[in-house]
Amino acid sequence: MRARIHVITLAVADLERALEFYRRLGLESPGVVGTEFAGDDTSADGAVVMFQLQGGLILALYPRTELAKDATSAPGPPGTGEASIGRAVASKADVDASLHRAESACGLLTAKPRDRPWGIYSGYFRDLDGHLWEIMWNPQLDTETV
Amino acid sequence: MRARIHVITLAVADLERALEFYRRLGLESPGVVGTEFAGDDTSADGAVVMFQLQGGLILALYPRTELAKDATSAPGPPGTGEASIGRAVASKADVDASLHRAESACGLLTAKPRDRPWGIYSGYFRDLDGHLWEIMWNPQLDTETV
Repeated sequence: MRARIHVITLAVADLERALEFYRRLGLESPGVVGTEFAGDDTSADGAVVMFQLQGGLILALYPRTELAKDATSAPGPPGTGEASIGRAVASKADVDASLHRAESACGLLTAKPRDRPWGIYSGYFRDLDGHLWEIMWNPQLDTETV
Repeated sequence: MRARIHVITLAVADLERALEFYRRLGLESPGVVGTEFAGDDTSADGAVVMFQLQGGLILALYPRTELAKDATSAPGPPGTGEASIGRAVASKADVDASLHRAESACGLLTAKPRDRPWGIYSGYFRDLDGHLWEIMWNPQLDTETV
């Protein structure tokens, strides 16, 4: 079975500015969502922009500061294009197992899996070159798409 | 119509090492391909690793040095996860038009569109936060997937 990627999250300095940029490129989005999930100094804010692409892939825009909190990992210098790639799996146990597998292959676990206010359970690792992956379980995704 | 992303290219320090890492995570690939396209000081080498994912998306691994040459744009510091997102369009004229649109929206054109030895025509831009996009025309992709 082929692996699947569900979300590409681009870290941005300014959510509204980035939204406007991608809209000018022709991408369509309802705009900023998740504003009801306020963060704090250590918990990430839920506000995010999502563009639904063909094939079920989501392109997300998320503030650099919040991605850094969510992944418990300092972002690269501004302008270097920090991003994360999201893969959904079928259960919390599968999240744990996937992250364990990445660690066993010498990936760096930056955030242990945990529940989020917006209903998902996820953790992050960086690959050998610093690319950030989020492994998530989302009860709102039907298993067909996992 | 929804936009589509075709390739996520992760810049890596060592192609074989990164290939081994992702294979240990369960992704399948025939290994390094494109080695017949030797680069030089200014032209990028064609050697690349591709993982075919569900939904037609390709996860590619490409050396940092070669991505920097191909995009005519210096990569970020090691470990910051430089990547590019590839979108295929239907013709060379569409590549030109898409890049022009990105420039008009204040994106930074880093590489003017040009033909490559491996048969594609593409150019690159960076968005407002430094995320690198490659807009490409690939005559080997049937238009259904564009």
